Amino acid sequence: MKAVVLFSGGLDSTTCLAKAIKDYGASNVMTLSLLYGQRHDKEIVCAQKIAEHYGVKQVVIDLSTIFENSECSLLKKSKVDVPTGPYSGGIETTYVPYRNGLFLSVATSYALANNYDVVIYGIHHDDEVKNAYPDTSVEFDKAISEACYLGSGKKIRIEAPFVKMNKADIVKLGLELNVPYELTWSCYQGHDKACGKCATCLDRLEAFKANNRKDPLSYE
Amino acid sequence: MKAVVLFSGGLDSTTCLAKAIKDYGASNVMTLSLLYGQRHDKEIVCAQKIAEHYGVKQVVIDLSTIFENSECSLLKKSKVDVPTGPYSGGIETTYVPYRNGLFLSVATSYALANNYDVVIYGIHHDDEVKNAYPDTSVEFDKAISEACYLGSGKKIRIEAPFVKMNKADIVKLGLELNVPYELTWSCYQGHDKACGKCATCLDRLEAFKANNRKDPLSYE
Repeated sequence: MKAVVLFSGGLDSTTCLAKAIKDYGASNVMTLSLLYGQRHDKEIVCAQKIAEHYGVKQVVIDLSTIFENSECSLLKKSKVDVPTGPYSGGIETTYVPYRNGLFLSVATSYALANNYDVVIYGIHHDDEVKNAYPDTSVEFDKAISEACYLGSGKKIRIEAPFVKMNKADIVKLGLELNVPYELTWSCYQGHDKACGKCATCLDRLEAFKANNRKDPLSYE
Repeated sequence: MKAVVLFSGGLDSTTCLAKAIKDYGASNVMTLSLLYGQRHDKEIVCAQKIAEHYGVKQVVIDLSTIFENSECSLLKKSKVDVPTGPYSGGIETTYVPYRNGLFLSVATSYALANNYDVVIYGIHHDDEVKNAYPDTSVEFDKAISEACYLGSGKKIRIEAPFVKMNKADIVKLGLELNVPYELTWSCYQGHDKACGKCATCLDRLEAFKANNRKDPLSYE
């Protein structure tokens, strides 16, 4: 079995990668990183360093033309600022239109064209509870997994190993797997150091705290 | 209601476009055409002429990097020839890996980012009966429609108006709607004239014959 890991270089997908390597062996795992016009495209540079750390292949595909007119605040072109503070509970300005559906579909086409069997991504239970993003729910995961499986001629399976875990659980697993969290990037801003104020920074800091560990990343 | 039509410039999607214009009005319809490394990328030029004919906007997005290593015979880079004769009944070498799932996902992201409500595509019953492509079945359509609907925060609906029609039915409808079939392109080869020998040429010729009409296209 060969696996493509959707890989942003963030905390969740890096833990996902570590788990995939444990499950399938590094020689059977590759990473797929996607550019979509994000402010924090430095995450792709981080992703590259992490792929090198693990000795796995990284492929980068640029999808940014799809989002040229999007007002999502995560995009470089957007006039909307990245909000500070925790997730609000509604659909956020940081929601990238149907990002997970798009990324899983790109990965399914890529996996099929390159003889991989599994596509793995890092959605987790917090995403659903906080209801920040509609493309992270258990129902969405079920529907897109079915679509990718049927549409690929039953050749590609989607795995979402963290779908019932929260971010603290993910960090717990990652620490056991010696994930190099110092190399990861979560912050929505593209600054030199993580801002420590956006929702994903706050979530990350909290997840380390819940494990009585200090996040090894530098913050502003 | 505003609609994005997935638009290859072929017989099915052009009839789809004519129907969408009838249903939603030309000012509420746009077309999205996708490059994926196809031999017959002249279909995109045909698509452009048809979009001009109807006075609707056409956006073209290039996804060809995703298929760089694919052995699908429809691709320019492929060493496999386009087969002649009718569909074999199994998965064809002309199956582009998860193309419909990918295209619908791109269209859903695009539609959401540009305030459209509906994405329309032209799969039809022949596709399923002949079992040529797994991403054209009713079950696939159901799963991907659910994924796009849920993952978009219940904002995007997928329409497949021909899912229970055959190609002859589509031509019948298109003739009623005065579709300019002379501008369309179906052939898998990228030659000057349609080959008249590949599965899609044969299907098209048969569909006109079933309507007692001559296909207005020139054949080799």
